Amino acid sequence: MSRVRELDPINLTITAEAGCVLARVQDAAAEAGRLLALSLASEGTAQIGGVLSTNAGGNATVRYGNAREQVLGLEVVLPDGRIWNGLRALRKDNAGYDLKHLFIGAEGTLGIITAAVLKLYPAPRESAVAMAAVRDARAALDLLASLQTENAEVVTSFEYLPRIGIEYVIRHAPGTRDPFDRVHGHYVLIELTSAREHAGLRVSLEKVLGAAVEDGRVLDAVFAESAAQAKALWRLREEMSDAQKPEGGSIKNDVSVPVSRVAEFIDTATARIRDELPGVRVVAFGHVGDGNIHFNLSQPVGADKDDFLSRWDHFTGIVNEIVVGLGGSFSAEHGIGRLKRATLEHFRGEVELGLMRRIKRAMDPDDLMNPGRVL
Amino acid sequence: MSRVRELDPINLTITAEAGCVLARVQDAAAEAGRLLALSLASEGTAQIGGVLSTNAGGNATVRYGNAREQVLGLEVVLPDGRIWNGLRALRKDNAGYDLKHLFIGAEGTLGIITAAVLKLYPAPRESAVAMAAVRDARAALDLLASLQTENAEVVTSFEYLPRIGIEYVIRHAPGTRDPFDRVHGHYVLIELTSAREHAGLRVSLEKVLGAAVEDGRVLDAVFAESAAQAKALWRLREEMSDAQKPEGGSIKNDVSVPVSRVAEFIDTATARIRDELPGVRVVAFGHVGDGNIHFNLSQPVGADKDDFLSRWDHFTGIVNEIVVGLGGSFSAEHGIGRLKRATLEHFRGEVELGLMRRIKRAMDPDDLMNPGRVL
Repeated sequence: MSRVRELDPINLTITAEAGCVLARVQDAAAEAGRLLALSLASEGTAQIGGVLSTNAGGNATVRYGNAREQVLGLEVVLPDGRIWNGLRALRKDNAGYDLKHLFIGAEGTLGIITAAVLKLYPAPRESAVAMAAVRDARAALDLLASLQTENAEVVTSFEYLPRIGIEYVIRHAPGTRDPFDRVHGHYVLIELTSAREHAGLRVSLEKVLGAAVEDGRVLDAVFAESAAQAKALWRLREEMSDAQKPEGGSIKNDVSVPVSRVAEFIDTATARIRDELPGVRVVAFGHVGDGNIHFNLSQPVGADKDDFLSRWDHFTGIVNEIVVGLGGSFSAEHGIGRLKRATLEHFRGEVELGLMRRIKRAMDPDDLMNPGRVL
Repeated sequence: MSRVRELDPINLTITAEAGCVLARVQDAAAEAGRLLALSLASEGTAQIGGVLSTNAGGNATVRYGNAREQVLGLEVVLPDGRIWNGLRALRKDNAGYDLKHLFIGAEGTLGIITAAVLKLYPAPRESAVAMAAVRDARAALDLLASLQTENAEVVTSFEYLPRIGIEYVIRHAPGTRDPFDRVHGHYVLIELTSAREHAGLRVSLEKVLGAAVEDGRVLDAVFAESAAQAKALWRLREEMSDAQKPEGGSIKNDVSVPVSRVAEFIDTATARIRDELPGVRVVAFGHVGDGNIHFNLSQPVGADKDDFLSRWDHFTGIVNEIVVGLGGSFSAEHGIGRLKRATLEHFRGEVELGLMRRIKRAMDPDDLMNPGRVL
């Protein structure tokens, strides 16, 4: 269950079993000069089966989409023990209902994914990584828009990092440091990559950042001059979840809104939460390029952890109302599991839930698959 | 039902009603400096509802995927008359089962799509269009592989055209002409596009084609020097379906195989069909970049049309067996409808059909939606 079964460099596909660790599949692709365009902080331990069952997102979604978008075919063990062999390595196949998308993101409640055919891309030849200090979250959005207009097809990552998150990381992740001489309030981490030779990514990124410095949206920027420097900048982003743990209780919100409303969401929700609990430390960070913000709340310094965490539902409720009011989702990339079932019932209407229940009953009438999850 | 409801240039989305003609949605996007990445020969008449219900493919699938991949949200009228409002303009939304993918490509058998949120891209700033005469179908595949390696992110179209198809077009489509001085057996039509300035597409395409001329895979190439010339080259491709009509009876196969097996498929199927009926004219053309070949058969010159067409099932059966043997699909982009229901039953196992039937029964227990189609 952890074999790479096949790699077709011309068809740009790899067939991997569910137990394959994501990083191993990435490596197999890289050895063939190809790219698996799924990149998660947890790629060293996450397995393909889990990545697909949860429709994982990650750091390259702004360019390549979610895990779902990487899948051409699936093999699934069904509730009645039969195996559906849908391992087709085809980019076009309009023959009845699309079953694979039903299993992807279903969190194992409709069947167990045992293997998948995943898309590959030619390996990147060039990359440019930079971190920019921006005036505020709105300036981050403006910068994203400029970058998309100038560089659409090569914008691989665009992550937002607030000052407090950088401080947490520097305090708790050994070997990290602030890349800027001065303290700024807001940052973005940008990666452009291209499979083309002489793609001119650095020049092009300098141009966009230069224009943004001129008009005051960008306050300062640093470019990675080596792979090691790129890694150091990325570490500031990748340590940001873990670095919240030593700061006490943390209430997590994994939400998404239309990209155009990210700044409005962060500002509105931050103000509302601070009204509710002065001293609360809002750590809003993440994949602004695809509208997915991890809007986490650290307890006030010195507050009682259990007391703070006992208000989890109250705070997530406030955040989720704002999110949904902006046309967003209370569950962007982390899924429903057990914890968010009531939230799903609250926010998605009876029509949508009714459809999901019908599908669950039709596919798994005896409720054998991962009972108590999602619905 | 034919309004563009909303366009969000930062979120890169457009919300269009089902009755909108595809070309009108493209125009609305273009006016905002954005691109709707769906391009079909029938875009002047095809409506969004039909395009999504059939999961249309088209000429840019090699880069952007099918219609399915352009959809973020849907509004659907269900069999019981209720409306499912899933018109979310989100790039990440993991909240239960993905319902939209069930309706897309279901050919109206599960519900009626009334509106959709579609992805946009920044408008291209530069393009390069060329037609190359290639040694054979295998050389076309090799050229595609080189192009993908050198230019992955800008390869927007890669279409295969056989000599007989070019002859049909020149004979029957007024104003078309062979762009080459000499007669060749096989051609590809290539379009690179980029939203970046100074993308160097022409230089880069010349480099790849130049190398392929050196090693004998490409015999000659012409570049479009103007938008008018690009249009003239594209007309050779776009007229290729209609140009088959005046040549008598035509038996159509819309099939796909892994891209790496396209040449093997064309060679094997052509030989087999010619054995079966000497004089039959094989017109195999289309979207080789995504493995989708329109493997059409024109009647032998002077044969009886009705007699030829009476053997439709026999010939499509031969072609489909070869396709499925190569891991392909007998229905790539045209769907099942009424005509291919028996073929679906024949080639997709009981497990897969059983799942589809369960879904149909669960969603439309009274078989009200487009009865007699798909299942």
